[in-house]
Amino acid sequence: MTAVATREQIVAAADRLFYHRGYEHTSFADIAGAVGLSRGNFYYHFKSKDAILDAVIEVRLADTRRTLEQWEAEAPTPAGRIMRYVEIVLTNRADIQHYGCPVGTLTTELAKLEHAMHGQAGRLFALFRGWLREQFVQLGQPERADELAMHVLAFSQGVAVMANAFRDEAFIRREVDRMRDWVSTYER
Amino acid sequence: MTAVATREQIVAAADRLFYHRGYEHTSFADIAGAVGLSRGNFYYHFKSKDAILDAVIEVRLADTRRTLEQWEAEAPTPAGRIMRYVEIVLTNRADIQHYGCPVGTLTTELAKLEHAMHGQAGRLFALFRGWLREQFVQLGQPERADELAMHVLAFSQGVAVMANAFRDEAFIRREVDRMRDWVSTYER
Repeated sequence: MTAVATREQIVAAADRLFYHRGYEHTSFADIAGAVGLSRGNFYYHFKSKDAILDAVIEVRLADTRRTLEQWEAEAPTPAGRIMRYVEIVLTNRADIQHYGCPVGTLTTELAKLEHAMHGQAGRLFALFRGWLREQFVQLGQPERADELAMHVLAFSQGVAVMANAFRDEAFIRREVDRMRDWVSTYER
Repeated sequence: MTAVATREQIVAAADRLFYHRGYEHTSFADIAGAVGLSRGNFYYHFKSKDAILDAVIEVRLADTRRTLEQWEAEAPTPAGRIMRYVEIVLTNRADIQHYGCPVGTLTTELAKLEHAMHGQAGRLFALFRGWLREQFVQLGQPERADELAMHVLAFSQGVAVMANAFRDEAFIRREVDRMRDWVSTYER
């Protein structure tokens, strides 16, 4: 395998482990074990868990940008695009019920660890926030676009935490329906 | 100091450390250090971190019951009592911006750890849920009381995660105002 492919494999395994078990609970050895690498080969690619976290965040940012571009290509109206975001909690309901939201849980954990990369992880939320804001501007709400975007982000996080705590799919569906009604009040 | 007082001190220190740093990141030694106990004295009280977690959850349940009783004594209407819950995110805004919600972050972390006490921690949410449900029954919404209670819980968790990520007090105030308007639509 090329060095680039190995590096990508490490980052993908770390991404999954950080999400499933948490950053703190995932050791260097867990990640090396998941990709079947010797310690020496592993250290060639990453010298610290922080360096892996940095790479995981960069990959998530790139994936998110691709997702947002896809939503823009697929949904012709700003309200439809906002609903694509809202519906993540349904699309990813199995993972969310098991592990919560990948962005929310990472950010929360890094805040508690007073980790230097809390701000880095915040860029993931900021990316969604800016994109949602743009949709509300297009919906004719330039003044309130940012607070409406924050409201939608808070919705997704609230649903993720409660769905994870109670593992209740009917709850997720009800909250998405509620948001659909709310978004439609902004449609012109 | 009596054995009971020492035990209470250990549980209080563990409660604070679990909340501030996370359960996984807090070691037995951290807790012993915080109360200035020798390892031997410490083990006399608790044999494992799980046993401490169990005691922390029991204390939080007892504290929550007292808080709910206090709200019932202070707020004469069900809508007023629901607003007491909603306003926790304002009352505790400094801690929430630093560490998130104590219930939400513990439950989320235990889910990722696949910890046997995930269900135990869920009793904290269940306590609030049952109490909020009762308020909505009194507001004349017996059929929908449980889903309205879950909506209020999701609100508090969404605000906590986003306030923790962006450390934005104005956002908390706006969301509380939004909930006040929403609760008032159920007042008779």
